[in-house]
Amino acid sequence: MRRIPNVPPDRFPRPVPRKYEGTRQDAARWARDTLRAQILDGAYGGLSAVRPPLPSEERLATDFGVSRNAIREALGLLRSEGLITRVQGSGTFVTGAKLRQRLDRLEGLAESLAGHHLSVDNVVLSKYESTANPFVASKLQIDEGAPIVFIERRRSVGGLPLSLDTTALRSEAIPLLANRILDVDDIFGTLERELGVRLGWAENTFEAVAADKGSADHLGVRIGSPLLLLHRLTYLETGVPFDLESVRYRGDRLSLVMTSNRVGSGRPPAAE
Amino acid sequence: MRRIPNVPPDRFPRPVPRKYEGTRQDAARWARDTLRAQILDGAYGGLSAVRPPLPSEERLATDFGVSRNAIREALGLLRSEGLITRVQGSGTFVTGAKLRQRLDRLEGLAESLAGHHLSVDNVVLSKYESTANPFVASKLQIDEGAPIVFIERRRSVGGLPLSLDTTALRSEAIPLLANRILDVDDIFGTLERELGVRLGWAENTFEAVAADKGSADHLGVRIGSPLLLLHRLTYLETGVPFDLESVRYRGDRLSLVMTSNRVGSGRPPAAE
Repeated sequence: MRRIPNVPPDRFPRPVPRKYEGTRQDAARWARDTLRAQILDGAYGGLSAVRPPLPSEERLATDFGVSRNAIREALGLLRSEGLITRVQGSGTFVTGAKLRQRLDRLEGLAESLAGHHLSVDNVVLSKYESTANPFVASKLQIDEGAPIVFIERRRSVGGLPLSLDTTALRSEAIPLLANRILDVDDIFGTLERELGVRLGWAENTFEAVAADKGSADHLGVRIGSPLLLLHRLTYLETGVPFDLESVRYRGDRLSLVMTSNRVGSGRPPAAE
Repeated sequence: MRRIPNVPPDRFPRPVPRKYEGTRQDAARWARDTLRAQILDGAYGGLSAVRPPLPSEERLATDFGVSRNAIREALGLLRSEGLITRVQGSGTFVTGAKLRQRLDRLEGLAESLAGHHLSVDNVVLSKYESTANPFVASKLQIDEGAPIVFIERRRSVGGLPLSLDTTALRSEAIPLLANRILDVDDIFGTLERELGVRLGWAENTFEAVAADKGSADHLGVRIGSPLLLLHRLTYLETGVPFDLESVRYRGDRLSLVMTSNRVGSGRPPAAE
């Protein structure tokens, strides 16, 4: 918010916003969206920060120009997602601030979280040499039946399951199988360090899907819970497609962040 | 798949892939992920293309190196999502191919679908002049209580609801309210044509969330269905933040596609 310098703030009485004109349900949805964005922005504390309470229902109602009933409904929606909790006598607090991962950089999870002081734990569910079926062969540009490395892992951050990752790699990655590094580190960094290759770029596809039983069991959520599904084909710097992944992220644990540019715009994206 | 030129393909007998080594449930999940990626790639027909049937269960089991039971389970998972359907006596067909929108270009929905010959219909749920609450004010870098334009729309593609969009715009957009253009077109293109501004870039945040009652009603899905939630703040080329949106996409109707680069990689992303 801009303030005019050298003028006491109380010279500018808080304006009364015009009332939201939709139904209460729409008002609640809008208030919920806005509060969610604030929570993700860290306005009420992040993953490891001190957490101030959310403003009172009355204050929120005034700020949003909606009824207190709409605010109550909005807070109920956020509680049902596990994003906030009410503490008797103290107020409402953020419980489930999501991890944020930048999409416009090709990074492994541990790399993305390097500044957060959060532990990343991997459980290797499968890890073996296999052969390429027609789909994997066409994606990795190898012959059908050619050897590949197949890895499935569940990844947890701060002790809570975050994602279920299935990876098919070209056969040059076979040496990784003999190694315990996948129990603790990203595949991306491991490929670069252990094989001496350089990653170039990846093609990513995102969807929101419901958790099937197998995924729900591994991730500790209910069947049908929303998951963010990433399909990613990663190329080496030389242009060789090397790593084909499917990653299912718990919807309540992650948000993905990126900058996009208008085609023909001469302006570079805003710096982080 | 690579073929060696001038050698008849039958000189290379189809290799028998090694068996998938995980549990049947994991095998089904992996087969489902792969089939889903193929479907999204348009391998079995797109939104308007002729649709060949999926390969037989037997053939899929061989290709994936998994049991027929695992394939049946995988097909069941895809059917439960509405992605495929079985037609008695004819085979299994793709029913719900998803729209693909590129994320690394800042585009409106109608612009993204321009090559698809699919109709985009908008229902304007709300459209009025309002005032900025503290959150909107801080995002749009305007004073609290300053006038803004508030718009809610449901957008449908090919006659089916796709997304529920809530938009707060700077007051320069007020002239749009008098105009019927929002019933038929993207806000992005409308801003550029009607106001003569140039869009620059946007900061995007994505999540997978469960549909609340209001969103479910507007989008024609069940409560709890997975939605892809986009928060987007769009800047003009001059650096002015102008357009703050929340968009809820039906999870079964859209996938988002983008390229990401390894930091320090000198290689440009692959061309489309």
